Amino acid sequence: MTIRREDLHPSLSDPALESMRFLNEAAERFPRAISFAAGRPYENFFRVDDLDRYLRAFCRYLARERGADDATIVRTLFQYGRTKGIIHDLIARNLVVDEGIEADAESIVVTVGCQEALVLVLRTLRRDAHDVLLATSPGYVGALGAARLVDLPVWPVPEGPRGVDPTALATAAAAARAAGKRPRACYLIPDFANPSGARLPVAARHDLLDVAAEHDLLLLEDNPYGLFPAAEGRRLPTLKSLDDRGDVVYLGSLAKTGFPGARVGYVVADQRVSSPDGGSSLLADELAKVKSMLTVNTPPVAQALVGGMLLENGFSLVGANRRTSAVYRAHLRLLLDGLARRFPAAEESGVAWNAPEGGYFVVVTLPFPADDAALMECAERHGVLWTPMGHFYDGAGGRNQLRLSVSAVSPEQIDAGLDRLRAFVASGSGRR
Amino acid sequence: MTIRREDLHPSLSDPALESMRFLNEAAERFPRAISFAAGRPYENFFRVDDLDRYLRAFCRYLARERGADDATIVRTLFQYGRTKGIIHDLIARNLVVDEGIEADAESIVVTVGCQEALVLVLRTLRRDAHDVLLATSPGYVGALGAARLVDLPVWPVPEGPRGVDPTALATAAAAARAAGKRPRACYLIPDFANPSGARLPVAARHDLLDVAAEHDLLLLEDNPYGLFPAAEGRRLPTLKSLDDRGDVVYLGSLAKTGFPGARVGYVVADQRVSSPDGGSSLLADELAKVKSMLTVNTPPVAQALVGGMLLENGFSLVGANRRTSAVYRAHLRLLLDGLARRFPAAEESGVAWNAPEGGYFVVVTLPFPADDAALMECAERHGVLWTPMGHFYDGAGGRNQLRLSVSAVSPEQIDAGLDRLRAFVASGSGRR
Repeated sequence: MTIRREDLHPSLSDPALESMRFLNEAAERFPRAISFAAGRPYENFFRVDDLDRYLRAFCRYLARERGADDATIVRTLFQYGRTKGIIHDLIARNLVVDEGIEADAESIVVTVGCQEALVLVLRTLRRDAHDVLLATSPGYVGALGAARLVDLPVWPVPEGPRGVDPTALATAAAAARAAGKRPRACYLIPDFANPSGARLPVAARHDLLDVAAEHDLLLLEDNPYGLFPAAEGRRLPTLKSLDDRGDVVYLGSLAKTGFPGARVGYVVADQRVSSPDGGSSLLADELAKVKSMLTVNTPPVAQALVGGMLLENGFSLVGANRRTSAVYRAHLRLLLDGLARRFPAAEESGVAWNAPEGGYFVVVTLPFPADDAALMECAERHGVLWTPMGHFYDGAGGRNQLRLSVSAVSPEQIDAGLDRLRAFVASGSGRR
Repeated sequence: MTIRREDLHPSLSDPALESMRFLNEAAERFPRAISFAAGRPYENFFRVDDLDRYLRAFCRYLARERGADDATIVRTLFQYGRTKGIIHDLIARNLVVDEGIEADAESIVVTVGCQEALVLVLRTLRRDAHDVLLATSPGYVGALGAARLVDLPVWPVPEGPRGVDPTALATAAAAARAAGKRPRACYLIPDFANPSGARLPVAARHDLLDVAAEHDLLLLEDNPYGLFPAAEGRRLPTLKSLDDRGDVVYLGSLAKTGFPGARVGYVVADQRVSSPDGGSSLLADELAKVKSMLTVNTPPVAQALVGGMLLENGFSLVGANRRTSAVYRAHLRLLLDGLARRFPAAEESGVAWNAPEGGYFVVVTLPFPADDAALMECAERHGVLWTPMGHFYDGAGGRNQLRLSVSAVSPEQIDAGLDRLRAFVASGSGRR
């Protein structure tokens, strides 16, 4: 049978879903290029031997703290398990230790990466064609893509150098309502956002919470990079830790702070859901119902590996990531210094960039379009990869901008890569 | 914030999603009952030590057959990977060895259990409100649930003792079309179906393929139990292996033939998708686009474990499951003999059952309702659990029927459980 594309779900022809494919293919096509495109974590501290050790640590924990016998341990690792996960209590302890978030373990759903958590939340919130999601623009492609899968339109909230302006959120929510829509939630990454690198100041966090309450919005706080401030120890409180009204759904990832190969993320959803009959349930339990039909369980063996890692580190991912955090800090410094050395007169070269306070990403503005065609030319002629910012705008935006990631490059590659980027910029100066 | 249930996606109030929760809770509430309800595989052959050995086997394979160096091996296990999976080629070799299916490895998408594969396929096929899915009734709850998540109505195709009658499929497809709907596919389990235990004869398989071609339907063939015939070696060819027009999408699971804790399934989707611009793609690549926004990757470490198991067994799951298959055969025999001994005169006792040719499940008909209330009473007073067949009908049906599973019980439990079931039936005889 040949199937016509016109007969498939509209998301299959959507730029948001095409983006991921294009960017993956660009990376595959130029395997020897220096890649500032890859947003994967630093991998030089990973060891295959860690895996068995993590597993054993988790098994010991099952035996000692949960009183599991051998048969129960085998069943826990090999069989289906609890829909909401088997390391929910370990994650709850991590949230206390690292984030000062006191979450009931029952309000946590362990997911196949943070991406599944996003899909669970959006699927649950999208009732009908009136519902819309507010999301930062530029914003994470995965959030746009998840919204597409559940037919939920995304209304942009502009993100500035200091994150989402609370007034802009209020304006966007009001505009959606005025258009007959029901804005359900706002998706954002308050700490070192992907792609912008922006961090939301503490005062704005409080203001955002007030706007959310006023406009009856959930805030979907995604926090993959918060552990990696550029100045050691200078972390800000998460929205969730400041939230005393229960308006924040917290999306956590262990991909960047553990390892992506386990695909373990989670969501803290401690909101109450009221039923017409007067009963109520936890939002986490509603998400679990969706999960039971989406992936059934997050692989218990993968949870066990990440659980073992948490146990080995006294539940602290800050502790587990001390060496990696130092690498990101050093790389970010090298990148920013390297840009400054190579493009000394911004007003003359037309090249500008931001200076994020942490995370993986820096946004560079060129004097000419940094689009897919430019990326291909840059990869082919100069051997360096980056991400056109256009992919992070749902529609037009970021035309002259590119995102550089420092997480998966070496200091030598940063140096050589920036030389190549300078050569590319020089070669393209005629396009201004 | 308190969220109103009426403001959530309709699936959250749907019986299909409530079913899973109810059945899980029943099991949790009566942990000491003998459970004929659990559909999980036999676990006594699982060993924690297997996991590290599987992992090492997969690493050796990466080094020897793919020429991977240490850094590449680490990256393969710990990092994000190929959206369609990293053991697609191993699965392709398994399909040749065990099923005589010659599938291009590029047409395989490795998924988080077969459930994710179902969601990918249904999400992709559901374009708009005209689309409907045909599915056997009774049928797998997970298929109904997946359809609910993507707003795809399910039209039942009655399943008889010998599976789906091809004429019934043609009738259902025609009825849907006459009602202005577009039937896209028919979901079925041809071998030892869940819940009915029915197996489709070979001639009917050929006829079904003809009906599919005639009515422009895909057949979604789900095959979790095909390796477990009651008579050793008596397996029938899958629909996919008989399909020369490319109308079958094959859904595979390694939960029952490997272990559920890895949550590894897959889909073979070798259909072409044509674009209006004249281009074309593989259906598998369209599914991968959805997957990139749903779970990003099937956990590479989980794939590595299952991959190692395939490597250790020369790609044969038949070989890997020799001992387990013998257990299921013996259990099924014990259950059927035990029923015959306890309910000798069906016309008198009003108790009847089918005699499946393999798999996990037997359906018993009682002379009174075998509904949720009866299950609760049976669990509480008699200490035995089973599954009300009503959960497998999307609407009314199966009222006096229950499903017994033999996969996760011991011979002694089968014996004691059937005694308890007899006591329950005797106690309920007044309800006729």
